[in-house]
Amino acid sequence: MKDYYYGACLYPEHWNKEVFIRDVQHMKQLNMNVTRIGEFIWSLLEPEEGKYDFQILIDSLNILKEYEMNVIVGIPTPTPPRWMTYKNDDRLVKNEFNQTLIHGSRQHVCTNNAFFRKKANQLASKIAEVIRDYDHIIGIQLDNEFKAHTDLCICDSCVKLWGKWLEREYKDIERLNDAWGTNIWSESYRSFEEVVPPATTPFLHNLSLKNAYRKFTEEQLVEFVGEQVEAIREHCIFPITHNSALGFNIDNYRIFDQLDFASFDTYASSDNYSAYTLNLDFWRNMKSNGDFMLLETSTSHGGHSNSYGIPHPENYLQTEVFLNYAAGSRTFNYWHFRRHRNGCEQPHSAVVTPVGEPDISYRDVKKAGSLFTEIKPLLEKSTFERPDVAVIYSDRAKRYFLNEPSKNYDYRSEMTKLYTSLLNKGITVDVIPEQNDFLKYNCIFVPYLHHVSEDLLEKITHFVNQGGTCIIGPMTGDRTEEHSWPSENGLSKLGKWLGINNFIQTEAKGIDIYGKAFGENEKLSGLSSFLTPPKNSNILGVGTSGITKNRVYSFEKSIEKGKVIYLGAVAEDLFSSIQWNRLIDTYLIKHNEQIELEIEVGIVKYIRKTVDGKTQIWMANMQADRKKYNLKNSHQIIWTNHKDNFSSNELNPFECRIIELDKEEIKLQT
Amino acid sequence: MKDYYYGACLYPEHWNKEVFIRDVQHMKQLNMNVTRIGEFIWSLLEPEEGKYDFQILIDSLNILKEYEMNVIVGIPTPTPPRWMTYKNDDRLVKNEFNQTLIHGSRQHVCTNNAFFRKKANQLASKIAEVIRDYDHIIGIQLDNEFKAHTDLCICDSCVKLWGKWLEREYKDIERLNDAWGTNIWSESYRSFEEVVPPATTPFLHNLSLKNAYRKFTEEQLVEFVGEQVEAIREHCIFPITHNSALGFNIDNYRIFDQLDFASFDTYASSDNYSAYTLNLDFWRNMKSNGDFMLLETSTSHGGHSNSYGIPHPENYLQTEVFLNYAAGSRTFNYWHFRRHRNGCEQPHSAVVTPVGEPDISYRDVKKAGSLFTEIKPLLEKSTFERPDVAVIYSDRAKRYFLNEPSKNYDYRSEMTKLYTSLLNKGITVDVIPEQNDFLKYNCIFVPYLHHVSEDLLEKITHFVNQGGTCIIGPMTGDRTEEHSWPSENGLSKLGKWLGINNFIQTEAKGIDIYGKAFGENEKLSGLSSFLTPPKNSNILGVGTSGITKNRVYSFEKSIEKGKVIYLGAVAEDLFSSIQWNRLIDTYLIKHNEQIELEIEVGIVKYIRKTVDGKTQIWMANMQADRKKYNLKNSHQIIWTNHKDNFSSNELNPFECRIIELDKEEIKLQT
Amino acid sequence: MKDYYYGACLYPEHWNKEVFIRDVQHMKQLNMNVTRIGEFIWSLLEPEEGKYDFQILIDSLNILKEYEMNVIVGIPTPTPPRWMTYKNDDRLVKNEFNQTLIHGSRQHVCTNNAFFRKKANQLASKIAEVIRDYDHIIGIQLDNEFKAHTDLCICDSCVKLWGKWLEREYKDIERLNDAWGTNIWSESYRSFEEVVPPATTPFLHNLSLKNAYRKFTEEQLVEFVGEQVEAIREHCIFPITHNSALGFNIDNYRIFDQLDFASFDTYASSDNYSAYTLNLDFWRNMKSNGDFMLLETSTSHGGHSNSYGIPHPENYLQTEVFLNYAAGSRTFNYWHFRRHRNGCEQPHSAVVTPVGEPDISYRDVKKAGSLFTEIKPLLEKSTFERPDVAVIYSDRAKRYFLNEPSKNYDYRSEMTKLYTSLLNKGITVDVIPEQNDFLKYNCIFVPYLHHVSEDLLEKITHFVNQGGTCIIGPMTGDRTEEHSWPSENGLSKLGKWLGINNFIQTEAKGIDIYGKAFGENEKLSGLSSFLTPPKNSNILGVGTSGITKNRVYSFEKSIEKGKVIYLGAVAEDLFSSIQWNRLIDTYLIKHNEQIELEIEVGIVKYIRKTVDGKTQIWMANMQADRKKYNLKNSHQIIWTNHKDNFSSNELNPFECRIIELDKEEIKLQT
Repeated sequence: MKDYYYGACLYPEHWNKEVFIRDVQHMKQLNMNVTRIGEFIWSLLEPEEGKYDFQILIDSLNILKEYEMNVIVGIPTPTPPRWMTYKNDDRLVKNEFNQTLIHGSRQHVCTNNAFFRKKANQLASKIAEVIRDYDHIIGIQLDNEFKAHTDLCICDSCVKLWGKWLEREYKDIERLNDAWGTNIWSESYRSFEEVVPPATTPFLHNLSLKNAYRKFTEEQLVEFVGEQVEAIREHCIFPITHNSALGFNIDNYRIFDQLDFASFDTYASSDNYSAYTLNLDFWRNMKSNGDFMLLETSTSHGGHSNSYGIPHPENYLQTEVFLNYAAGSRTFNYWHFRRHRNGCEQPHSAVVTPVGEPDISYRDVKKAGSLFTEIKPLLEKSTFERPDVAVIYSDRAKRYFLNEPSKNYDYRSEMTKLYTSLLNKGITVDVIPEQNDFLKYNCIFVPYLHHVSEDLLEKITHFVNQGGTCIIGPMTGDRTEEHSWPSENGLSKLGKWLGINNFIQTEAKGIDIYGKAFGENEKLSGLSSFLTPPKNSNILGVGTSGITKNRVYSFEKSIEKGKVIYLGAVAEDLFSSIQWNRLIDTYLIKHNEQIELEIEVGIVKYIRKTVDGKTQIWMANMQADRKKYNLKNSHQIIWTNHKDNFSSNELNPFECRIIELDKEEIKLQT
Repeated sequence: MKDYYYGACLYPEHWNKEVFIRDVQHMKQLNMNVTRIGEFIWSLLEPEEGKYDFQILIDSLNILKEYEMNVIVGIPTPTPPRWMTYKNDDRLVKNEFNQTLIHGSRQHVCTNNAFFRKKANQLASKIAEVIRDYDHIIGIQLDNEFKAHTDLCICDSCVKLWGKWLEREYKDIERLNDAWGTNIWSESYRSFEEVVPPATTPFLHNLSLKNAYRKFTEEQLVEFVGEQVEAIREHCIFPITHNSALGFNIDNYRIFDQLDFASFDTYASSDNYSAYTLNLDFWRNMKSNGDFMLLETSTSHGGHSNSYGIPHPENYLQTEVFLNYAAGSRTFNYWHFRRHRNGCEQPHSAVVTPVGEPDISYRDVKKAGSLFTEIKPLLEKSTFERPDVAVIYSDRAKRYFLNEPSKNYDYRSEMTKLYTSLLNKGITVDVIPEQNDFLKYNCIFVPYLHHVSEDLLEKITHFVNQGGTCIIGPMTGDRTEEHSWPSENGLSKLGKWLGINNFIQTEAKGIDIYGKAFGENEKLSGLSSFLTPPKNSNILGVGTSGITKNRVYSFEKSIEKGKVIYLGAVAEDLFSSIQWNRLIDTYLIKHNEQIELEIEVGIVKYIRKTVDGKTQIWMANMQADRKKYNLKNSHQIIWTNHKDNFSSNELNPFECRIIELDKEEIKLQT
Repeated sequence: MKDYYYGACLYPEHWNKEVFIRDVQHMKQLNMNVTRIGEFIWSLLEPEEGKYDFQILIDSLNILKEYEMNVIVGIPTPTPPRWMTYKNDDRLVKNEFNQTLIHGSRQHVCTNNAFFRKKANQLASKIAEVIRDYDHIIGIQLDNEFKAHTDLCICDSCVKLWGKWLEREYKDIERLNDAWGTNIWSESYRSFEEVVPPATTPFLHNLSLKNAYRKFTEEQLVEFVGEQVEAIREHCIFPITHNSALGFNIDNYRIFDQLDFASFDTYASSDNYSAYTLNLDFWRNMKSNGDFMLLETSTSHGGHSNSYGIPHPENYLQTEVFLNYAAGSRTFNYWHFRRHRNGCEQPHSAVVTPVGEPDISYRDVKKAGSLFTEIKPLLEKSTFERPDVAVIYSDRAKRYFLNEPSKNYDYRSEMTKLYTSLLNKGITVDVIPEQNDFLKYNCIFVPYLHHVSEDLLEKITHFVNQGGTCIIGPMTGDRTEEHSWPSENGLSKLGKWLGINNFIQTEAKGIDIYGKAFGENEKLSGLSSFLTPPKNSNILGVGTSGITKNRVYSFEKSIEKGKVIYLGAVAEDLFSSIQWNRLIDTYLIKHNEQIELEIEVGIVKYIRKTVDGKTQIWMANMQADRKKYNLKNSHQIIWTNHKDNFSSNELNPFECRIIELDKEEIKLQT
């Protein structure tokens, strides 16, 4: 069985050895058992091109070994030394607006530059060789938050690779011209090298071109990850990961497909706590082995020279730590132990101040350390219990939204709203990549996924045929792989399967478009789709006003053993929408756990199964006022962090609690 | 007599022949009799430099001929093929911010580039030759919405031409230095080639330079239009037009002066319907022959990858179609018949969806086709009756506002507000270029025209001498041709004619500047002018507070048979201002038609005269609730699109109605 | 004794000699006795490189001499002629965003360019030679508002000098690397020429680099000023000044240290009148001789092509003129006498319009001329009486805020708020550079000064030891000279002196952080600091909620004869904060003048001492409604500009008044 970790990042490159040792000792006192080092130290490891010096890494690892501190070692590719770019501006990232981004922070070198690749892979290989024999290393982290600061690059290296990539994808330039519809506006190309990158143009680029450039960018990064893994594997077998995050434009599934476990960073503020748990529910599902870690989060608040973060309220941190483990993560790791004295992140909170005194959240960090120590035995005797409902969160889906930016919809925001509306009702879900196995669930929700691939459709139909319930929409299935309209029925093969026609789509924001569903007439919002449903379907939602009057936007259809719900539009405010809530009540709740639990908004819970077959509810109140819950199953409170002052059916502000049901509940389906 | 047309744009380059034929057949069923093709197909007509292939044009024209569909053929200069710019970045537009705009959308090539001109003119000539014998062609459209996506260009071609243009304009560099006052800030130039374009400078450019660069830009485009006309006229005599629009920075008058009829595009949303009728009232007056067409408008909503448009409410479209013809336009043409499957305009509504099924407004398009068929006989038996009032809308005036951007006033917005305040009161006006004939009107309104040219002043004085009423202001006459202060009295020759002195000007926004006019004391707004009026004048408006107390901002003066009203400032909100309304009532209403008609806001009407001398009022309710009107003249309702359910003195939401007066009304003046 | 001046700027380069003479005559009629000329006339003085012609300067000076008009002569370095940059783009400023800023306005040439320096210094020398014998010249003005339109420049000249400057500063590259902490993110440099300028980078630059680049930029300008002074001093001894302003990023102290008197420009609008008096209270203290002038202010409103200014209310101008002299300034000079006919500043108000007629504020200018004439004898018989309280306003402090921009705090805004809160309470203060002598005051306030240098700390400790009261904070002392965290206790040597530890800092905006001080519990704001105070201190402010509960943010400590108040945080709204007001009442009022005067907000007063030892209060009401005051000392009103209508204990709107106390008041301390 794998172990659980609690710790913080250390920067031996920034402090002398004495301070480093003092901090490691301090960490031990705070019940910490893990650290992460090295993700930015390239200039120390290779101070001149080809001249290596691994002393700082070896020294640090030796000290950490001495103090029995587990460690994750970073490959410092996000910060190439000055020699990489001095008098070599061509190696720098050039963004869509033709700005060349210089040395001085991070990620300024294009990861598609051949010289960079060569040096980065050499470095990874050499680090792997140096660290191979340290048994307190629990993982290697590639880079740091890929694409945290850059998005598309149009440097000369990229533009050349782009032509070659297109050639591999489309073989024949006429196939590309056809697929992209380049006859519109005489955009057509005579050869692959003629194809422009999405740099500034008088109006707007072809969506297929934008979509392809993002795919190209994603895939080049996946390729780089593959090269790094290969370079490391020349010398060692430590599990490899990367600390990703929801905000960046990469293909997480394909990146982690090459890695051994998932890791993530999050800096959600306390008033946005659902963004925190969304991370837990998403990254848990990134790898089929379920293995994931939280590698960076603040003790109190983020902050850099252009933005001072807002601190967490007192005691909030403990709910984050508690839920992290409850949700299946093996690690909770602060960024960072000691505040940076220099650089641009001086306003970022840490465990201790630059002089080593307690920083603002020190009291909470200490309590969290105790909490970790107390719940660890309980964690080890139980496993996370997968929920029955999965919501697809897809980097491919996100790409379509990135292609249509400006004042249009933002994928992450819409998904977070949808997720939060479920969380608020006490529904625990898995948030999964579209590539994952569906058969583990009773209900699959597929929202905001403009393009449903043939693979995905096949999985959906198989899932439904086997008895699953699938909710499709809003904004799902209406575009092709090339970000164009389908050539048939508006939903292509999905539409054929559903049996729809007369598909139309319109923006519902800013005009009174009403629709009635589940008995309630409400103002609709978003890019809304209406259609003629198949004959053998139950109509769920119908337009009630003006242009959309009597047009259907939602229906339910039974197919073999299961059913599919098509959802063409939703009400303006998911949180207050009655039709939305009734939809969820109808299709989601009843497929969820058989635990009869009602909660007030603010409480987050996860179900765990003990090794001896008992069901536990791990719950925390993430808000600053008392919250009630009502659990009908007979149960006992077996642990709380408010030992002196807790009441049944109510959580104190930021209280964490573990409840065990008296007997195993029967679940209808696995 | 010319014919009336109703139709939609087709894209044979985007769909196969089968779809194209099906769409043409479908159009016929919808009572359509016109289409537009070809405005972007350069890459198909000239796939390699100098290698031409007109098959798509010939095929399309043949099919359209077979189905007796009239056609407007585009010259596809806005979309040069990739060979034009590949490895020739110097042909690309470079905007004021030094951004070079690449291939991938439209208008990326500078129309002042010599190579572009040569190729564009060759192309136009060849197209003309190919199409010369098709008798179903009703017009040729140059380019597409000149300057829709670009404004000033500072590419090398432009900068060189700029020096030469200046030399032609000023002859001697010292004349330029004097005219621009370049001794300010040591800006002075020793030769024409030294003169900078208005690229980014630490503070602000000389207004005369900015003004000259805009004039230069306008005139180069006029020159290009002339070259295109010449190239086409080598081979054919079809009437030539261009689809312009109010949003772009060009000299419409001089462009259309070289063309045969006016055309325009508009995508005004329904909540901004006065912007739609402003187009009708403006473009009708662009050519002295009164011939104009609406070549592009949406069936429901615009939309592109960066903005999803808001759909029209149901039945709104019919009011647009009805008023279009009532106001004198010969054509109403949708953009476009079938939604684009690819490209960046996928969210733009059309008649049918990409799969050919009815799009969101199909029901309305169908009704509009019936409406067109029904009113066509009535249109053919009547002619538009020119109103008595004209408001000058001048691209020259707009230039002065463009020279002073940022948070200052926007010409189009101010003009639209002013126009709307008249429309709301039921006053129909001609909106005319300053070059038009004034003697057709009783009253000329000259607002927001900073520079009154000597030609214009001569026309105004002649008009007033002959008995006309002229309202001058606000913000009129206070700058020279070079965008500087006049060298005498603040209003130059206009001021001399009016007999004013002690002219001062101040911004009234953000401070309490009150003025009393027509018995009402109100807060003033805008760049406001005060002066000492001539002795023999009636004072209309006087400042009442602080710095402007007792200063005159408006007066009326009789000159020979007519009168002039000077208006130095207006109240903050034209719609609610009592002094504004009284000014209009005093000078405009009584000069308007002698039809005793009162309307509620939302009703728009045009007067038409039948061939047998009767007066008709064509009116439509452009809002979603019932609107009353009160017509004192004895009359009959001779047509409505609400046949089953209409009441006298009231229009249903979006109802269109034709009323005929029982006897010819006597008008006081022509 | 030096004289007092009242006047306006003239532009002989823009108007012919006749107009120039007429304007000078007109100025005399308005009681004006000074003008400023020549600050932009380089192209007339050196029309071709090396070809000089000083006729315009000589002619203008002769005319002014004839009319006995005193004059300040500008050195026109902000506007290099076209020959300087034509085909020499490398001499242009290139801003942080890589934009090269072209000819066409002002300050487009980099003042660090060697060719510019040579030509600018030659020009200054030659002007000095030409004007040396004119005895009506009262001063020479260098350039015009240094850095008004530009900030950091990264042109090739700058980047080269930057490397050299760093080498002089740090000697050894490893010292730089250590000082900046460049091991963070592998930023480290191997040589000085490798160090990047702060151009666009993917994320954020190291704060030490940003800070150093600003210091470098400041010092290069100081160097240029030194060269200019040297060039002028070859030929003449006229006092040299520069018209600076609060908005620009320069080191005023070091610039004026090389000049003979201070000058400033201000265009504060009337609703922001405290910004006007802040200028008076600041620039008075720029030179130890106290000599300063107001060289530019509007008669009514600013304005340029991108922004139309809001006019002053009637009579407001007189309060500006009156307070200017009362506060110790010797000159009040309008920009400008006659509105520019051309260029981009046409909307800027002046004394007369471009045609020479009275401009909008002419009545006020005339009254102000009379006021000046009336108060001049009183000015000559009295001197400004230094207040007991000084607030440090430091360009060094500002630099730290510029390093951390975006939505963070703005130094000038925060300082203006703080200053205004004092002004509103009737507390007159000196606003002083940190280099000034403290021993003249009873109380020194040191807010928003992130870095307290060793020199400054020494001055503070000496001041306190001698019996002074020093208030330190908010946001003071928490960063090093390199803009990093101190290496000990969070406040470095300041902290050691105070005896604090456990220093933490957090943003208080956006979260409920409350603190209680002076008996009042209030929401705190800003970047707030908490700490463990020394044992022998009085605790003044303590956090009362959540994470900051029981943490101290303010304390008072007696040290030798004086006391220091540390202020780690302030309430959200200084104007309404009770704890802020009580702090001021406790430490500031009682150290201020012994005049028992209470005022309503809107009244501004200065104390002057007559040559025969009497105390005068010069006060003006800067707001548009009547304001009360209560003066307990027995006194007489000896002058007012509302002679016909004034009442004791109340000022009319915009009234100016001089009160003389009946007997000399005893002050506790000098």
